[in-house]
Amino acid sequence: MPMNGNLIKEKLAQASKLVAESELDAWLIFVRETANGCDSVLPLILEGSLTWQSAILLTRHGRKIAVVGNYDADPLIHSGNWDEVIPYVQSIREPLCQVIDSIEAESTLTRIGLNYSANDDMADGLTHGMYLLLQDYLRDATVVLISAEELAISLRGRKTHEEIARMKEAIRETDKLFEEIEAFASSPPPPSEGERVRVTERAVYNHVQALMNERGFGYAWDPTGDPIVNSGPDSMIGHGIPSDTITIEEGHIFHVDLGIQKDSYCSDLQRCWYVGSEVPQDVQNAMDAVNRAISAAADALKPGVPGHEVDEAARTSLLDDGYEEYMHATGHQVGRAAHDGGTTLGPKWERYGSSPYREVQEDEVYTLELGVILPSRGYLGLEEMVRVTPTGVQWLSNRQLTMPLLGIPG
Amino acid sequence: MPMNGNLIKEKLAQASKLVAESELDAWLIFVRETANGCDSVLPLILEGSLTWQSAILLTRHGRKIAVVGNYDADPLIHSGNWDEVIPYVQSIREPLCQVIDSIEAESTLTRIGLNYSANDDMADGLTHGMYLLLQDYLRDATVVLISAEELAISLRGRKTHEEIARMKEAIRETDKLFEEIEAFASSPPPPSEGERVRVTERAVYNHVQALMNERGFGYAWDPTGDPIVNSGPDSMIGHGIPSDTITIEEGHIFHVDLGIQKDSYCSDLQRCWYVGSEVPQDVQNAMDAVNRAISAAADALKPGVPGHEVDEAARTSLLDDGYEEYMHATGHQVGRAAHDGGTTLGPKWERYGSSPYREVQEDEVYTLELGVILPSRGYLGLEEMVRVTPTGVQWLSNRQLTMPLLGIPG
Repeated sequence: MPMNGNLIKEKLAQASKLVAESELDAWLIFVRETANGCDSVLPLILEGSLTWQSAILLTRHGRKIAVVGNYDADPLIHSGNWDEVIPYVQSIREPLCQVIDSIEAESTLTRIGLNYSANDDMADGLTHGMYLLLQDYLRDATVVLISAEELAISLRGRKTHEEIARMKEAIRETDKLFEEIEAFASSPPPPSEGERVRVTERAVYNHVQALMNERGFGYAWDPTGDPIVNSGPDSMIGHGIPSDTITIEEGHIFHVDLGIQKDSYCSDLQRCWYVGSEVPQDVQNAMDAVNRAISAAADALKPGVPGHEVDEAARTSLLDDGYEEYMHATGHQVGRAAHDGGTTLGPKWERYGSSPYREVQEDEVYTLELGVILPSRGYLGLEEMVRVTPTGVQWLSNRQLTMPLLGIPG
Repeated sequence: MPMNGNLIKEKLAQASKLVAESELDAWLIFVRETANGCDSVLPLILEGSLTWQSAILLTRHGRKIAVVGNYDADPLIHSGNWDEVIPYVQSIREPLCQVIDSIEAESTLTRIGLNYSANDDMADGLTHGMYLLLQDYLRDATVVLISAEELAISLRGRKTHEEIARMKEAIRETDKLFEEIEAFASSPPPPSEGERVRVTERAVYNHVQALMNERGFGYAWDPTGDPIVNSGPDSMIGHGIPSDTITIEEGHIFHVDLGIQKDSYCSDLQRCWYVGSEVPQDVQNAMDAVNRAISAAADALKPGVPGHEVDEAARTSLLDDGYEEYMHATGHQVGRAAHDGGTTLGPKWERYGSSPYREVQEDEVYTLELGVILPSRGYLGLEEMVRVTPTGVQWLSNRQLTMPLLGIPG
């Protein structure tokens, strides 16, 4: 859509530059039916969808080529972003082979980068079936097919000004929703006769989703768990379902994990409240420890540092303060998706693949998130968002440093 | 969400039955970060999203097993749909291998079906990176990994009562939108001073999207081209962008291709109007020819018939009537997606892979769509939706058999 025209041009230029700096002769994005789920790189550099098998190529020498089904060609030509738009009717095989043949290669074998990656779901848009198909199409071509993981991760991770501006706006709207959550939880609608005035987790979830829908926001992750709402010790922690029986009660920690998508970019934040008139000492201590750990991560986060070192800084801080270890990574990237791939600020667990070993890059945006379970009170968790600068971090979210009180009707 | 609980159980039972009837020992759906785009089979049998590498297994003997990251386990346990939910913290490797070992195989090698397919994007949810990862995890297992294409296509294609009911509802809402389009196009808002009272393609597109957003409908395909709006001979035919300069004028054919998603299921319909006070004979003739071709397809469509035969019936009818051949398939399946995979009612072109060679099955839902370009008037195209019954078709849409007149301000 016109709205994204400039952003697309910005990212397409970035992608071309990445190819020129890489060891590839061309980056090939090979897709079909992109409206049904799609390679994660494509929406960064092309608007709209592609129906039939389509090959988007960026070459080392700056050529930008699209081989697409005949009915998909017009919008690409119209965008002015492509040097060559090659429509086909019956099969992509022949035009694709011709384009591949025409690429000037640095050596005898043309090095073609593809979007597959065992490590990174955002660099892994090529399905196995499409890989097999491509192998067949290119069986006589003098090519070597290799992973374009590094390019995909950099293109997605290193945010442009426009991308940062959109994420700030998503954060601003999320902050506003947190204020509205507080108001709703502390002043629930009047009860029907005979009912107690109590707010369930599910009621908060429903209220937030109604506000999000009304404002045309998207969900940063699956709506069944966005927002996550936890009140008290019996709540389902993690990616749980808000309960329609658990109500917000005096003495609970009330916790919300919420992410919205606005103009294609996401927020991902956690906030919490203590339900009562005074914050007990153990809650205050936990709040301070969680914040110390988040600060430790922020202090460690700078370009060139491997993700696991940032995780370790936070993890060690929390353990040193005498709390139990959290069983997830300290941070992940955010962008068009809440879990935006690339480097993870996580421990060296196999479930994170190589992502914690990767080095942080300038202009990446990360969450810093962790928490502790307080027996009898519930889950105290915070999640902030930061951008990596040349020397450290810029806080994109307004940090929650203190524990607010949530008053509920007596 | 609770709303889909019964549908999920219905489809999960169908999936189990398909495995039992197949040559597989188990169907393995291997995914990660499903909120960022997902295997197309998973949402049919599981609600919500899975974050870390996850293995969903249905065995020939009816076991339903989920191996998932620790924070994803609770909602699956809560659903009551899974015999075994196995959470892991550091790596899926070991629990996955144990589960695979525990599957009773029919022969020495356990036959594991995976969602990859060169032919069908809806049966091709396994990315190449995930395939490589799985090969590594299972390097010591006595398994053979094969495509589960046939199961995925049947599960997705053969619609249950609930799925049909939802699609009928989506069609009903789309019909209502077509009425509103007619009203908007013929009675545009009053012009500003000095402006002509004319409606652009883009204005119609904006109006429809505003109504869709207001009603909480999703888009059946990428919103940049939903609806497609064409007026007159200069419009961008195919998957084009609505023009902000082309206006609806006397003598045009005005054509809209619109699909909505409601309660996860889609419509996909085309309607057209003649702009003026009387339908010219050439337009009437073309309308009749298009309808004859659609009827020919409907007559040919029954269980067991290969897709290309249905396509040929329509294509031949239109050619015999003296019109130019359309360069797309006569029909595709509709379901959770507008292009729902499986058998295509299309010609034997390589771009459709093996999909036109597949046989039609009972309870599949297809579009029947085609059109002709009338020089100086524009694109006359229709698209209907039908369900395959044991002996033929049931029309799900209210066929457009005549050409309505669209009056515009003089």
